Amino acid sequence: MNPLTSPLLTDLYQLTMLQAYFAHGMRETAVFEFFVRTLPSRRNFMLAAGLEQALDFLEQLRFDQDELAWLEQSGLFRKDFVEHLRGLRFTGDVCAMPEGTLVFPQEPILRVVAPIPQAQLIESRLINLVHFETTVASKAARSVLVAPGKLLVDFGLRRAHGAEAGLLAARASYIAGFSGTATVLAAPLFRVPLFGTMAHSFVQAHDDEAAAFLDFAKVFPGNTVFLIDTYDTESAARKIVALAPQLQQAGIAIKGVRLDSGDLATHARNVRRILDDAGLTRTTIFASGNLDEYRVRELLAAGAPIDGFGIGTSLVTASDAPFLDAVYKLQEYAGKPRRKRSPGKATWPGRKRVYRHYRDDGLLDHDVITLEDDRQPGMALLQPVMRGGRRLQASPGLDEVRAHAKRELATLPRHLRELDSSAAPYRVEIAPVLRDLAAKLDQQSASGQHDSSAAALFV
Amino acid sequence: MNPLTSPLLTDLYQLTMLQAYFAHGMRETAVFEFFVRTLPSRRNFMLAAGLEQALDFLEQLRFDQDELAWLEQSGLFRKDFVEHLRGLRFTGDVCAMPEGTLVFPQEPILRVVAPIPQAQLIESRLINLVHFETTVASKAARSVLVAPGKLLVDFGLRRAHGAEAGLLAARASYIAGFSGTATVLAAPLFRVPLFGTMAHSFVQAHDDEAAAFLDFAKVFPGNTVFLIDTYDTESAARKIVALAPQLQQAGIAIKGVRLDSGDLATHARNVRRILDDAGLTRTTIFASGNLDEYRVRELLAAGAPIDGFGIGTSLVTASDAPFLDAVYKLQEYAGKPRRKRSPGKATWPGRKRVYRHYRDDGLLDHDVITLEDDRQPGMALLQPVMRGGRRLQASPGLDEVRAHAKRELATLPRHLRELDSSAAPYRVEIAPVLRDLAAKLDQQSASGQHDSSAAALFV
Repeated sequence: MNPLTSPLLTDLYQLTMLQAYFAHGMRETAVFEFFVRTLPSRRNFMLAAGLEQALDFLEQLRFDQDELAWLEQSGLFRKDFVEHLRGLRFTGDVCAMPEGTLVFPQEPILRVVAPIPQAQLIESRLINLVHFETTVASKAARSVLVAPGKLLVDFGLRRAHGAEAGLLAARASYIAGFSGTATVLAAPLFRVPLFGTMAHSFVQAHDDEAAAFLDFAKVFPGNTVFLIDTYDTESAARKIVALAPQLQQAGIAIKGVRLDSGDLATHARNVRRILDDAGLTRTTIFASGNLDEYRVRELLAAGAPIDGFGIGTSLVTASDAPFLDAVYKLQEYAGKPRRKRSPGKATWPGRKRVYRHYRDDGLLDHDVITLEDDRQPGMALLQPVMRGGRRLQASPGLDEVRAHAKRELATLPRHLRELDSSAAPYRVEIAPVLRDLAAKLDQQSASGQHDSSAAALFV
Repeated sequence: MNPLTSPLLTDLYQLTMLQAYFAHGMRETAVFEFFVRTLPSRRNFMLAAGLEQALDFLEQLRFDQDELAWLEQSGLFRKDFVEHLRGLRFTGDVCAMPEGTLVFPQEPILRVVAPIPQAQLIESRLINLVHFETTVASKAARSVLVAPGKLLVDFGLRRAHGAEAGLLAARASYIAGFSGTATVLAAPLFRVPLFGTMAHSFVQAHDDEAAAFLDFAKVFPGNTVFLIDTYDTESAARKIVALAPQLQQAGIAIKGVRLDSGDLATHARNVRRILDDAGLTRTTIFASGNLDEYRVRELLAAGAPIDGFGIGTSLVTASDAPFLDAVYKLQEYAGKPRRKRSPGKATWPGRKRVYRHYRDDGLLDHDVITLEDDRQPGMALLQPVMRGGRRLQASPGLDEVRAHAKRELATLPRHLRELDSSAAPYRVEIAPVLRDLAAKLDQQSASGQHDSSAAALFV
């Protein structure tokens, strides 16, 4: 059972509900929407990501022999239900915001229309995928906004939450505008550009720091970025200056140095001076070590001569907001709009659209959420992407998604580009028809649900 | 390429360093130790977890044909090096703290002794696995400590960071003392007990709430936990009371109800009264919805009659401390101890042991970190677990690990059991021989590294 594709990577209640739907012949069309209820306190926008993996999951959904055998011997399910699962495939329709689109609370990022057992079963993994990539892309975009023109590299694999998180964080941050990642597997799987040269252990494994630099340069004459903080940053920079003539003679340009500890702004200034004084003006300075977008902003504001940043843990764990209030809710069943009314968690019922309005200067003005059949002006954000369980078109390449994200980020007005929460959050209007529908459903419900005591148990 | 097992799930610099080691014939024995530098502000201890997955990874490490082909065509590496990788296996030795052991900053949780290319290559994924499970087990233990005797269930899959995070969070929280998980795949893969019944969508898909309850009860007569907050919690509780006679007649006991929103303490009290008044005194109340250990503590302190808690997002993302300052550092190479001296990131050199000392009442007193050959009194925490790339013994079952964790948690003195940071952190002593060795290495280094300008480039 492969955790990345197994339909058993779901919550138990999805399967118990499925058995109940099966037992009672409930298989009418359900409409579920994925959206984020509210923004974390330090976010002004989100960047949608993860659709590609979600569609892969839907297309490949099936129970294999081992999984069916386990379900049967688990004693939790009936044999006829397990047999029924053998033939289960996802045959529904999906509309979604393209990856890289700016998105705000309450806006459906993705809508699934399918027979209720299918639409129900996929909930846990669908959220798991889209929530995570959207969380990381939204986090990554903040570094991109504060460091225009800088090289930004994802260094987070080691402290990402497992293998898939490390891999998908590389993808999501690249979408948001990072230059690339250190995570090798992201290159063959997603064509994300790779960065990286040496760790402290490489320097330490040599008796002499300069010998470590030379050893590396000989093997990677075209990719010589030296890590210079293992013992003493400035003295390592002077060693590099001393090595420069023979490296140059051998045709090796010293592409860059990396600082990974200490007072990065001061070290960067000192090292820049040491390099420049020796004529190494084209050798770049790359910084890493517990960085996040706040620290990057601070370093740049202090005028630190740093050309690029490796951002790891804070990026891949989205450490200041490691989750979004993302949910996937039933909005319609068997043709009737549905509304959950739990306090603080009430939903807007029905199939919805989101329309975006721009100011004359091309920046964002506001969005409107309305019902699907309430055609409005503005740009419609949800696009059909899957019909009958099959993609409607080939997926855009990752560079195309990244270019879209770049255009999207360029439409953010200044107050939404700030790292701190804006006093004026982006305006998302709920259209009158949608408010009316919600009120109507609440009223119907207040005027009386069926008398439950009259319901017969075993009919 | 399977992200869960591919050796390409690593940082690029591991491979570039490997090529440099290969080119220069560097293959002496390296000693790396995995440890956490400091505790996050709201942690007083950690619980080691993830060793099992780390050992699996080491035993299975190999490059397959596709991976080798990609490396070769990437243009990043030399053909002879890629060919060399074909035969690479992990043949080293590993010592580690058993899973479920209490661990504190600077203490090696795991030590790898292997030829440097092997020990280097595995760094990223080894940290990725042990860091994550240790993070979640340490978080989960806090809920276990504040809610003794309560049913605690991991509900986090949907907002875990990807598939592996969801799956391993179920495992790590079970080790820490959770009763089980909603994540189905954790049962076949790790034998973690499963919990779960219905979601709001199930209730919403029925025109009538009571009909939804009946439908479910008929299909799962032995597992009837009703979710009662979809519309109005108390009125749903009254519907259940009204249904109880016919359910009982059909031999169905109402095992429990679940509250998922609103003021949980008040709802729990109201619902308890409604149930008790109807004689449903054995029907339990289970609560969920944005819970964490702080909220659980608050609810229990308020005397809320809640029998169990579903804890999701905060658990699996360890949201108040989503990462630990976990590192894997070279401590010895070719028989010589090594020390990184980067400011704020200096390491204690050499192969180490950790000894634990207990008070007369059996509670923790203090730990001592020392060099391997400095035998001391106290309980030695690091055990040999792998030799020559093979496990030394079969892995303990998960229930055995969980029992060990339970015994470990019982040794925590009161001030370390608190959720807030203790004013008196646990004492971890660095033995004199270790301090002496570090000082000696610093001195050697101050008295002069080799003159780097004398090193020849192409010898």
